[in-house]
Amino acid sequence: MPRLNPLVADLAPPPIPSVQAWARAYDESFGPTVDLSQAVPGYPPHPDLIALLMAAAASPSTAAYGPIEGDRALREALAADQSALYGAAIAADNVHITAGCNQAFICAALTVAEPGSRVLLSNPFYFNHETSLRMFGIGIGLVDCPAEGGFLPSLEALEAAITPDVRAFAIVSPNNPTGAVYPPALLADLLELCRRRGIWLILDETYRDFLPAEARRPHDLFLRAGWGDGLISLYSFSKSFCVPGYRLGAVTASPAVVAEIAKIMDNLQICAPRVGQIAVAEALPKLGAWRETNRAEITLRATALKAAIAEVDGWEIGAVGAYFAFVRHPFAGLTSARVAEQLARRAGVVTVPGSYFGPGQEDYLRFAFANATAATIGLLPARLRRLGTELDG
Amino acid sequence: MPRLNPLVADLAPPPIPSVQAWARAYDESFGPTVDLSQAVPGYPPHPDLIALLMAAAASPSTAAYGPIEGDRALREALAADQSALYGAAIAADNVHITAGCNQAFICAALTVAEPGSRVLLSNPFYFNHETSLRMFGIGIGLVDCPAEGGFLPSLEALEAAITPDVRAFAIVSPNNPTGAVYPPALLADLLELCRRRGIWLILDETYRDFLPAEARRPHDLFLRAGWGDGLISLYSFSKSFCVPGYRLGAVTASPAVVAEIAKIMDNLQICAPRVGQIAVAEALPKLGAWRETNRAEITLRATALKAAIAEVDGWEIGAVGAYFAFVRHPFAGLTSARVAEQLARRAGVVTVPGSYFGPGQEDYLRFAFANATAATIGLLPARLRRLGTELDG
Ligand SMILES: Cc1ncc(COP(=O)(O)O)c(C=O)c1O
Ligand SMILES: Cc1ncc(COP(=O)(O)O)c(C=O)c1O
Repeated sequence: MPRLNPLVADLAPPPIPSVQAWARAYDESFGPTVDLSQAVPGYPPHPDLIALLMAAAASPSTAAYGPIEGDRALREALAADQSALYGAAIAADNVHITAGCNQAFICAALTVAEPGSRVLLSNPFYFNHETSLRMFGIGIGLVDCPAEGGFLPSLEALEAAITPDVRAFAIVSPNNPTGAVYPPALLADLLELCRRRGIWLILDETYRDFLPAEARRPHDLFLRAGWGDGLISLYSFSKSFCVPGYRLGAVTASPAVVAEIAKIMDNLQICAPRVGQIAVAEALPKLGAWRETNRAEITLRATALKAAIAEVDGWEIGAVGAYFAFVRHPFAGLTSARVAEQLARRAGVVTVPGSYFGPGQEDYLRFAFANATAATIGLLPARLRRLGTELDG
Repeated sequence: MPRLNPLVADLAPPPIPSVQAWARAYDESFGPTVDLSQAVPGYPPHPDLIALLMAAAASPSTAAYGPIEGDRALREALAADQSALYGAAIAADNVHITAGCNQAFICAALTVAEPGSRVLLSNPFYFNHETSLRMFGIGIGLVDCPAEGGFLPSLEALEAAITPDVRAFAIVSPNNPTGAVYPPALLADLLELCRRRGIWLILDETYRDFLPAEARRPHDLFLRAGWGDGLISLYSFSKSFCVPGYRLGAVTASPAVVAEIAKIMDNLQICAPRVGQIAVAEALPKLGAWRETNRAEITLRATALKAAIAEVDGWEIGAVGAYFAFVRHPFAGLTSARVAEQLARRAGVVTVPGSYFGPGQEDYLRFAFANATAATIGLLPARLRRLGTELDG
């Protein structure tokens, strides 16, 4: 076989299928597998959205290529939605539609960083951010987000990490994997520091619609003059509209950045798939109440998870928010991969090991609880306890 | 504004919207604009496929993430289709589904080439191949495909271009932009040479379903022992099934390459969009007769184009096949961009300048004629003549 690209060859196989494979050895002796590995909504799309998807599919024009930047109607609908949420004037020209938020990150990273330059990530990080940068030969610097600091980066740590080859700091809030929510004041300080040091702030807001109702506005960055000369915000329709299979995401940035992304998207795949764009553009203004229900439901599930973990000796919530909890396991001597594997094999609970999200995360497992009902989450204490006895016994 | 990635900043804006913009100045004095700029099918998807797309959209499970490598049913259906076409044993495990063939190329390129290594392209090349490689910092070498040689590469030229930093030779057959069809024997020799020299042959077969009926089998590469240790074949559902808006393509390669691509796709966008996958998997075995009709229709359009160009003094077909003709214009002193611009502005015929496809192509324009009926193609002689008078008069 001719040579392979070592940057890709050196990547581990995709993490989610790997951890799901552990559960195949589970014998269901404590009931069905509880899969908390992937961040997927645990309820279907709204019936009106399904109807709009069908209507869009019925039209032959949906099958044609669309504008590279995205269908105008969706760019306008998202701009209006974001303008309302952030209390800011975001225009359709600030929006580039992508095939999901992983692709939005790819677009943002390629817009600002060439091979050999570097992008800073929080540690822990969202694994696809790290593997995407590695695959492109973009270097990575880590900004520690210690448990003691609520899994948030400090300005000092960021400042210290910025060297001349650094092009951006990429963060996720509400965070994957920890669930930590970056306070608006911290985000404002981070953007200011990035701009002062001449680097971009890439802010992945995939989970922004699942902030608790009383803290629904994630930040006021879009209100700052010149925000586009520093901020690139990423969004996913996958979770908020329950349509991951339609592959729909977006970048909100300055028109200059949108123009760069159009060049990248033309190469990557010409345009995002149309059917979801057409349907969601029409659904978006109408599904406000439904989205509020989901926000409340996810908040309930977070509460249920906190209660469940609190019940079990030795297990402890590190942080929790939106779709995720970063949970400290009691097996100080073991790797997180070993604990997660045993938890899946023996107790049928699939989680992702902390080590998949960065160095020094061995004491944690990521619980993606959004796809489990409160009732299912209620099963966790018995399962975790069961493991406890067997692993340290 | 913080720095942009120079590899992307240096790219020109996407070509298709740029050339289409020229036609906005056309006053319709010779009738409506004839847009021959983009390779799009000029007829809608089959009604049964539309029905299947609607049925898929009706199911909430379509809205879920799917397997990274693609839905098993589509991988199997395409493997069966390709096995029949090539008379070879291609398995579902040889297939990775992507969001279109541009993305299939991205996946192939990243599988084999890291920044600083090089990939050889034919000259002329498909522009997104060139811009994709540039965007990743992968070097490019050109293998000349001169008009005298039927726009085909010679083995000598390829051999001479292979230096130690070269990882692959990427070609398109039937070709975009020229329409040239690579003879099976040439393809066999190219693969053998690539394997002997330890590089990959990336073969973009987006237009393979539009070879004339009597030459429908594009090559016998898949019959050669060990083909997977050299060949990466790319396919697009966009043209064959008239579904570019659904973003669906595929890579056919060894399981080892498929495993690399899964890592890349997980980063790029987790999985290809589902609705097209589900519908096309079911439609594929049933649309054989319809695909044959389209094959015949496109062949007719090629014949109509040849006749139309032959009518006009000074204009000459360089090559023609499947969706494209590379047409020599009579304005030896002018750049192809200037000729294409004038043709769009004054005569309402939108084509792409030869220079967009590589150095030394100034004498040519690309006509993507598949979306024009034979009747529309019949309008071309009058339009071209009109331009002739005005440009050299
Ligand atoms: C932080 C974060 N960003 C991006 C994504 C990708 O989502 P999608 O590509 O489905 O929009 C995810 C999905 O889990 C995520 O957790
Ligand atoms: C040679 C070639 N490859 C790939 C593509 C991309 O097609 P798609 O991404 O729609 O499958 C095209 C489209 O014009 C093409 O001409």
